[in-house]
Amino acid sequence: MPRYKITIEYDGRPFAGWQRQNDQPSVQQALEEAAAKLDGAPVQVQGAGRTDSGVHAAGQVAHLDLQKDMPAEKVGDAINYHLKPHPVAILAAERMHDDFHARFDATERHYLYRISNRRAPLTLDHGFAWRVGMKLDAEAMHAAAQALVGHHDFSTFRDSQCQADSPVKTLNAISVARMGEEVHVRCRALSFLHRQVRSMVGSLVEVGRGKENTMWVGKILKAADRSACGPVAPSDGLYLTRVDYASK
Amino acid sequence: MPRYKITIEYDGRPFAGWQRQNDQPSVQQALEEAAAKLDGAPVQVQGAGRTDSGVHAAGQVAHLDLQKDMPAEKVGDAINYHLKPHPVAILAAERMHDDFHARFDATERHYLYRISNRRAPLTLDHGFAWRVGMKLDAEAMHAAAQALVGHHDFSTFRDSQCQADSPVKTLNAISVARMGEEVHVRCRALSFLHRQVRSMVGSLVEVGRGKENTMWVGKILKAADRSACGPVAPSDGLYLTRVDYASK
Repeated sequence: MPRYKITIEYDGRPFAGWQRQNDQPSVQQALEEAAAKLDGAPVQVQGAGRTDSGVHAAGQVAHLDLQKDMPAEKVGDAINYHLKPHPVAILAAERMHDDFHARFDATERHYLYRISNRRAPLTLDHGFAWRVGMKLDAEAMHAAAQALVGHHDFSTFRDSQCQADSPVKTLNAISVARMGEEVHVRCRALSFLHRQVRSMVGSLVEVGRGKENTMWVGKILKAADRSACGPVAPSDGLYLTRVDYASK
Repeated sequence: MPRYKITIEYDGRPFAGWQRQNDQPSVQQALEEAAAKLDGAPVQVQGAGRTDSGVHAAGQVAHLDLQKDMPAEKVGDAINYHLKPHPVAILAAERMHDDFHARFDATERHYLYRISNRRAPLTLDHGFAWRVGMKLDAEAMHAAAQALVGHHDFSTFRDSQCQADSPVKTLNAISVARMGEEVHVRCRALSFLHRQVRSMVGSLVEVGRGKENTMWVGKILKAADRSACGPVAPSDGLYLTRVDYASK
C-alpha cells in the first residue's frame, strides 16, 4: 500500500484535540473518516504530534497508507473534499517510502503562541489568540525564556496528566517578540511534555506583566516542581506550525 | 449630553450588516443595546460607514450621546462588558465636541480585501478571506487597478440596490500586493458605492488569473454598465480598516 505524508492545517476549537477518542470529535477521526471515504476501506492516520483540545495547527504532519495508488496531489484534494465541513485541510501531500513515520522520524516540532496584548475583548481573533490586558514587556519575557533553552527536567512545566516516561527534554530554542499589539512566543524541540508550551507561556507572562523578574523562570525550572509554575495559558493562542524531518 | 467617538472592531459573520434592521441582527443594534444598558435609556449609535452583511471591521468609527458623563475609557470598557457575547468590541473611545458627526465629518474611508491564494480550503481563515485557487498575478492586478483611481462614474462597480444619489465617486488610491500566500487589495476614498470594493476586487481577480488583460478594468469602468463587471467578491475578505477625520 502506498504511503503518503500530509501537511495539515486546522482550527482546533471544535475538537477535543488531535487524538481519536471514543466519545468526542478529534482531528484524527475527521481525517481518518475522510480518507476512508476516498479509499473505500478503513484508514489509519498517524500524526507527528498530539495537539490538545482547542489547539490549532498551521503545519501538523501525518502519514497514512491507502489501497489506491493515486498522485499525491489528488489524494490531498480528495481528502479535502471529504473533510467538509470540518475546519481541517490538507495543505500538501507527498508520496513517501514505506518506512516513513510521521511521529518517529520527526526531528523537530515548532510551536507559535499568539498573545493579543490589548484592553479590548477579541472579536476577529476570538479563539485564535490569548488576550492579556496588562501591557507586556516582551524583551523581559525573551530574556527570561532563555533559561529554558537546553537539556532540563521540565517537571515544573508538565501537566499532571502527562504520559511521557521522563520529564527531561531538550528545548532547542525559544523567542519572544512584539509584533504590533501582539506578542509572539516561538519555540522548537524534538518533543514537548503535555501542556509544556502553555505552561512556559503562562509563566513568561508573569514576567512580562512585571509580577516576577527575569530570573524567576530559571528558578522555577530548577525547582522541578509543578506547583512552582505560573498559570497555564489557554489553548486559544497555540499553533503547531511546523514539523521537520531529516532528508533521507 | 456628552458625545463620544468610538472606534470599533467586529466579526461581520453573525450580522446582516452594520445597519439596524427590523428582523435581523446588526452591529448597530448590538452597540445600541449595550450602550442603553450602560446609560439606562435608549441610545442611538451613528456609524461612519454601512458595512454589508458578513463584512468585517478593524476600525469602524461611530458616535453616540450618553446621559451619563463618564471618562471616555470607562464608556468603552462598560459598553464592551455589555456587548458580550457579540463579536463586537470598542477599541478606543474619545470625548468629542457636540457637533462631531462620525458619518458627515469623515474625510476618508479605508478598506482592505484579503484574498487567500491557495488550493486548500480555508480553516483558520474560514470566513475571514476569499480563497482563490488559481495563482494570481498581483502585479498585473495592481497595474490594472490604477485605472480606477480618480473621479469616475463607477456604475460598473455599483450594486443594483445602491441608494446613492450619484454613481460618481473619487477613488483616492488602490493597491494590490502579495503577502506570502495572500493577496491584499487596499483602497481609500471619501465614500464608496454599495458593493463597490467587492465589485472592483472581483474584476481585478479576472485580471490576476489571466482571463482578462490589464487594460480591461479601465475599459469596463468607461462602459459605466453594471453588466460589464466581473463576478462580485464574497463578503468574507472585506474589512473596513480605518476612517479618517480632519483634525479640528
